[in-house]
Amino acid sequence: MASGDTPPLALNRLSVYLRALRALQREGIERISSQRLASRFGLSAPQIRKDLAQYGEFGIRGIGYDVVSLRRRLEHVLGLDRRHAAVIVGAGNIGTALARFPGLNTGAFHIVAVFDIDPKRIGARIGDLTVRDPLELAEVVESTGADMGILAVPAEAAAENYFALVGAGVRAVLNFAPVRLEEVDGVRVKDVDLTIFLEELAHHLVSSS
Amino acid sequence: MASGDTPPLALNRLSVYLRALRALQREGIERISSQRLASRFGLSAPQIRKDLAQYGEFGIRGIGYDVVSLRRRLEHVLGLDRRHAAVIVGAGNIGTALARFPGLNTGAFHIVAVFDIDPKRIGARIGDLTVRDPLELAEVVESTGADMGILAVPAEAAAENYFALVGAGVRAVLNFAPVRLEEVDGVRVKDVDLTIFLEELAHHLVSSS
Repeated sequence: MASGDTPPLALNRLSVYLRALRALQREGIERISSQRLASRFGLSAPQIRKDLAQYGEFGIRGIGYDVVSLRRRLEHVLGLDRRHAAVIVGAGNIGTALARFPGLNTGAFHIVAVFDIDPKRIGARIGDLTVRDPLELAEVVESTGADMGILAVPAEAAAENYFALVGAGVRAVLNFAPVRLEEVDGVRVKDVDLTIFLEELAHHLVSSS
Repeated sequence: MASGDTPPLALNRLSVYLRALRALQREGIERISSQRLASRFGLSAPQIRKDLAQYGEFGIRGIGYDVVSLRRRLEHVLGLDRRHAAVIVGAGNIGTALARFPGLNTGAFHIVAVFDIDPKRIGARIGDLTVRDPLELAEVVESTGADMGILAVPAEAAAENYFALVGAGVRAVLNFAPVRLEEVDGVRVKDVDLTIFLEELAHHLVSSS
């Protein structure tokens, strides 16, 4: 399987493994078997072995995986060994929350600009950023080298702003608008569906009662 | 495997299948094979068969699955054939966005109250809701029958508000605060990690370049 074909759920598993490895590294653990990794973090050992073997990572029998080198390998596979600049379109509640969210401003990711079409919002400060006019989008994407866009606009404005991001040169878009966007020009869209998390909890409520 | 033991990633796959089945039903498609389901929605056919077989759902060879009955079955497994009332703690940007989010106020889920400790926010309107004092939390959870809580507070306030939700009788908590909470008293916590979505996109950026 070419790495570009890795399905989203398999990639999300790599992200989960990466968080586990970072936790182990903070604890000073140097090696871990797939069994211990699985039991400690509630994962599946055969799935771990299968997923990692796809990237040429095989644990040594009786010893396991090297925590640091596997963490680095997964960061490389996930594209986290380089910096990604992202712009946010929409400075409403979601856009503002995302601009302030620590996880989007540490490690590989960095929010470099926030845009909003509302003249009352343009010029407002969100942390270190100033809300800008969408007319500046292409210029800002070029000058910052942003490769990601985050759509935090109402559903009816999502498609046009996706096209604006595509036109500006962004190559991947995270969409918080509650609408499914069709991908164009190879610019990947990830629709964030928060109800999936609630469904996971709802299952817990029925299965434990 | 007892259904209560279904790991989160497997549950998330059920949510993905459910969305696919709903789309097929809207198109009037009555039956679909695991192969067609997989190719149309970018999924894995063997994985679909394995996941569904765990719940006693086996497609008929050459005919496939019945779309409506499989949708109903997955809704039942996910606990979506009953209503879940949820309260939000924290009326900042994330809490306000979630209270207004259509997906959290349709189908199985319904936001019944929003709380904030800030006196300047108490009494403010968010859509049909009024921001309330957290002192009313237990009373509101009891009177509304809320079984879910959503934490949209800063990291340093997450643990105490989780305990408040537990004490009020909520049985599952979705945590947007960027901190990992330890579960107590069997009250399930789902930590939402938005960077996982960005990591999926980052992988696309490196694998397609």
